[in-house]
Amino acid sequence: MKRIGVLTSGGDAPGMNAALRAVVRMGIHRGHRIFAFYNGFRGVVENDSAEMYNRSVGDILTRGGTIIGTTRYPDFKNPDVVKRAARNMELLEMDGLIIIGGDGSFRGAIELQKLGTNVLGLPGTIDNDINGTDNTIGFDTAVDTVVGAIRKLRDTASSHGRTIIIEVMGRKSGWIALKSGLAGGAEAILVPEIPFDLDELSHVIESGMARGKKHSIVVLAEGVMSANELSDKLKEKMGVSANTVVLGYVQRGGGPTANDIILASRLGARAVDEIASGNSGVMVGEIKGDLVASPLEEVIVETSIIDPTLFHLASYLVH
Amino acid sequence: MKRIGVLTSGGDAPGMNAALRAVVRMGIHRGHRIFAFYNGFRGVVENDSAEMYNRSVGDILTRGGTIIGTTRYPDFKNPDVVKRAARNMELLEMDGLIIIGGDGSFRGAIELQKLGTNVLGLPGTIDNDINGTDNTIGFDTAVDTVVGAIRKLRDTASSHGRTIIIEVMGRKSGWIALKSGLAGGAEAILVPEIPFDLDELSHVIESGMARGKKHSIVVLAEGVMSANELSDKLKEKMGVSANTVVLGYVQRGGGPTANDIILASRLGARAVDEIASGNSGVMVGEIKGDLVASPLEEVIVETSIIDPTLFHLASYLVH
Amino acid sequence: MKRIGVLTSGGDAPGMNAALRAVVRMGIHRGHRIFAFYNGFRGVVENDSAEMYNRSVGDILTRGGTIIGTTRYPDFKNPDVVKRAARNMELLEMDGLIIIGGDGSFRGAIELQKLGTNVLGLPGTIDNDINGTDNTIGFDTAVDTVVGAIRKLRDTASSHGRTIIIEVMGRKSGWIALKSGLAGGAEAILVPEIPFDLDELSHVIESGMARGKKHSIVVLAEGVMSANELSDKLKEKMGVSANTVVLGYVQRGGGPTANDIILASRLGARAVDEIASGNSGVMVGEIKGDLVASPLEEVIVETSIIDPTLFHLASYLVH
Amino acid sequence: MKRIGVLTSGGDAPGMNAALRAVVRMGIHRGHRIFAFYNGFRGVVENDSAEMYNRSVGDILTRGGTIIGTTRYPDFKNPDVVKRAARNMELLEMDGLIIIGGDGSFRGAIELQKLGTNVLGLPGTIDNDINGTDNTIGFDTAVDTVVGAIRKLRDTASSHGRTIIIEVMGRKSGWIALKSGLAGGAEAILVPEIPFDLDELSHVIESGMARGKKHSIVVLAEGVMSANELSDKLKEKMGVSANTVVLGYVQRGGGPTANDIILASRLGARAVDEIASGNSGVMVGEIKGDLVASPLEEVIVETSIIDPTLFHLASYLVH
Repeated sequence: MKRIGVLTSGGDAPGMNAALRAVVRMGIHRGHRIFAFYNGFRGVVENDSAEMYNRSVGDILTRGGTIIGTTRYPDFKNPDVVKRAARNMELLEMDGLIIIGGDGSFRGAIELQKLGTNVLGLPGTIDNDINGTDNTIGFDTAVDTVVGAIRKLRDTASSHGRTIIIEVMGRKSGWIALKSGLAGGAEAILVPEIPFDLDELSHVIESGMARGKKHSIVVLAEGVMSANELSDKLKEKMGVSANTVVLGYVQRGGGPTANDIILASRLGARAVDEIASGNSGVMVGEIKGDLVASPLEEVIVETSIIDPTLFHLASYLVH
Repeated sequence: MKRIGVLTSGGDAPGMNAALRAVVRMGIHRGHRIFAFYNGFRGVVENDSAEMYNRSVGDILTRGGTIIGTTRYPDFKNPDVVKRAARNMELLEMDGLIIIGGDGSFRGAIELQKLGTNVLGLPGTIDNDINGTDNTIGFDTAVDTVVGAIRKLRDTASSHGRTIIIEVMGRKSGWIALKSGLAGGAEAILVPEIPFDLDELSHVIESGMARGKKHSIVVLAEGVMSANELSDKLKEKMGVSANTVVLGYVQRGGGPTANDIILASRLGARAVDEIASGNSGVMVGEIKGDLVASPLEEVIVETSIIDPTLFHLASYLVH
Repeated sequence: MKRIGVLTSGGDAPGMNAALRAVVRMGIHRGHRIFAFYNGFRGVVENDSAEMYNRSVGDILTRGGTIIGTTRYPDFKNPDVVKRAARNMELLEMDGLIIIGGDGSFRGAIELQKLGTNVLGLPGTIDNDINGTDNTIGFDTAVDTVVGAIRKLRDTASSHGRTIIIEVMGRKSGWIALKSGLAGGAEAILVPEIPFDLDELSHVIESGMARGKKHSIVVLAEGVMSANELSDKLKEKMGVSANTVVLGYVQRGGGPTANDIILASRLGARAVDEIASGNSGVMVGEIKGDLVASPLEEVIVETSIIDPTLFHLASYLVH
Repeated sequence: MKRIGVLTSGGDAPGMNAALRAVVRMGIHRGHRIFAFYNGFRGVVENDSAEMYNRSVGDILTRGGTIIGTTRYPDFKNPDVVKRAARNMELLEMDGLIIIGGDGSFRGAIELQKLGTNVLGLPGTIDNDINGTDNTIGFDTAVDTVVGAIRKLRDTASSHGRTIIIEVMGRKSGWIALKSGLAGGAEAILVPEIPFDLDELSHVIESGMARGKKHSIVVLAEGVMSANELSDKLKEKMGVSANTVVLGYVQRGGGPTANDIILASRLGARAVDEIASGNSGVMVGEIKGDLVASPLEEVIVETSIIDPTLFHLASYLVH
């Protein structure tokens, strides 16, 4: 029997609850005791926690967000604060702590580990910008939400013969823009990984018009520039104004897709076994279908890069 | 047998296609010939039209937007342009023209009628800001879309214990904000019809917090102020920052709900019979379940006002 | 201050939770105390109840089903059982009982009233088969679900050039079949209120084929006959076999639509005021937009009849 | 430049249109000419085909079913019929034929290849029962649909404290049942790959009840037995009756998910390059993220087997 803590940290992502449920139920199934810390690392620092039972995670499988709360918690960069967290983990006799979050959260986990706490990460963020896993928990749902918005926008774009720019999340990673743009049949997709080329973009829009296509949908990752900035550039270049939509926080919410639930369940269940067997300082991810534990240091080194094949495929298929 | 034109005008709205289908198929069923003019009044002015058959409107019932295009067309305020439109209607021997759109489009219709064209309006706009009908075509779908967004935002608001402001369409009318806020369980709803009171809003948010409610959703009609402006005011007043989301054009799109399809079908079918029997200068709407023809002049006088009972109900039910 | 009971009874319907929330919160707002009885009349008979607070109905607005449970409870036809229920209501000093359910539940309510309990009904059933209201709570959501299924079936029907029969709920009332069939563009709609005519149905399907339409969707209310029976008749008559789908309980579930939430909220809030002011033996419904209290005896006399205008409209618009 | 045919065959699946679009547009991009054969192999035999252009596949990306039709076509087991097909391919000077379908369709393809036609398969079926690919086109969407139905059924099951059995597609493969049951949090999942054990099932339901869980959802693959049969067995064993729902053809329809669109797009694009380079007699699938061509003979040998790890995970997580 081990005493295992779990928390969710950073931006919330659909499927975090499913991961929590898997940690709790597989943990109890294995004979461990599971404790949730509320609102991310803040709960560890402030000793705000509760033991979880099978019933505690009933009826949460399909709910978005996280029932144990999450915060961005910049104070955790302060070594004294981390020290307090480590001491609390010791006082509570925790054998390990599972952190469901993104790369910022994993940096905090690494610091905590240096002070003797066993830590294990699970990739929970809609951005899919973490190494060591093909998909992060929440990414599939976010793509689904964006594709839904693209389909709605296409109705208006097509009825009015307009260009609409939809700005989606992704500061360093273009994954959301790429998958949703490809699945939504967007006329153009702009991602941070590939240098922006105004000539090429205006060429795509104009050649579409020349073929009789009166409307265009441009999916823009926020890391490239803002939708307004792009609209201004297009106006200056082509003399045509575009409408803009910034999806924002809507992308974070919603009940998780089946894929996110299954991914979260698999990762959560494995996380328990890894940390119970003493494997610390790693993140459990899914690579090519297999569950793999990678060192947290490697996971955070650089963000996951989009697949250029998919990017080019998207451009070939739009006419 | 009559020759009847039909066009969609102004902002697109889900259900316009269902109305078009009803006009075409009921028209043909009654023995008339139906002609679509493309891109609103522009199609009349530029003589861009085509005869419609039963097959022409196949498979469009559940599609958002409008397959015959729409434009905002400020040139139609120019009397010479209207004259050209009236002359075209005469040359084409049209017995009448059905205009599916909002109050701006109906103003154009009134001008056209003064030059001898028989005109009939159908209320097609998501804003529900037209007299002479309880619901406009597209309103029900827009509410559905906004409620979906509120549900997603609640996941994030709740996970982070935050206030989120969602700005929705409605310059003069708060209908979208009111119905979606009520159905989404929003903590506060701000509409143009009711004076904004910062003290009251901050009281609602703070008393919620005092009761242990850590998050709030504020639904804001764009006619009150922008989400950013409201966020600044809240920050100054309460010292708490809120997140903002501007839904924008997403609200216009999507396949129509069953209610919008049925409303559009009923109105479209009735429009044919009204105009074929010589009833001109009216809009056909639905009031308390009955189809009613009201003079276009009355329809545009002032915008529909939200039901204050619903507004107060919303505030009683949120705790 | 009054002591008011509330229960849900009969088949569950989306929006029952929203009605419960409105009863509880408006009740408390007015200064009353509200008690939920679990699992319908069984909870009254077995004294299984709990006081409700604002928090008790938090986070249930958008959930399907009913959190206080429901049963079909044939024992309640036994006078001794009803007597026990009435005695319990007296012992608990209840000033009234709000019953959210269908006509069977209202019959029970009438018996209970005869023994001195103040009762008030709210129409909660997906079938829309109750007099005294234009729409029952849950009906709008059920139509939405059926339309979603029709859209999916159309893909398959069209790809294979087949006829598909979809059997939907409605023993005595064809409302679900009619509205969903109209909104789904079904080629034929069969309802209990209109005599079945095999010649006409086969004519519709065959003339569609003659015009080049290779597939048909037939929406069938269960009260007419079973999908299998209809399929056999069609095979015998036309020599063409049809595929069948029986939607079943899927129609009952799902989060309520915005319209159902708003209807339930309005009715629930009004129910509190009616029963608190001593109005017993009535059902509160919505007729042409207004809230109206009708005697329970009248409500159950005969079931609501579909609008024949809508029925004929559907047939004109399909080609 | 090659002349390449394409057809869809067997049961329709969401994403077939996306695959068709990718074949056409990538084909044209590479300089080939693409011809669609209507209604599966029947179109080859009866020479019912048309050349496809970029525009031919516009606006179909998100549509369910297949715009070029499909049939189950048992006549294609007749060698004379296959011969006619092969001759037609020769007369039309086709360099190859892409078959989007399931294992039955691939058997036909193998016969056709024996007579000299170059053939290439793409896995298009909701059942995910084909070797040589981790996911078939349409499977992800079908799981999504079933999970949606499970969520609705849970509302009713929970409100009434009942057991509901939902029968889903899968004669030989339990993939749909497994993934949807896991993602829907089903209390029990029954698949053809694992022997049915009535004692175990009743134990699961009864121990749930003993823990206070009043309702259960059982997901049953049709290959195990029918829902009615299972209901009878449960009644006999436990004395408790269960409700049943047979989802049927609803599982086949609906617009494809983002994942199905992307999978179909990748496979369709690759199919063109493979067949143009002379690779015949293979199916292109996706294995662990990579596109892989496998011999058709191997693909059809035995059906894909569910992952037992997932199956056990599901049972651990339900309490």
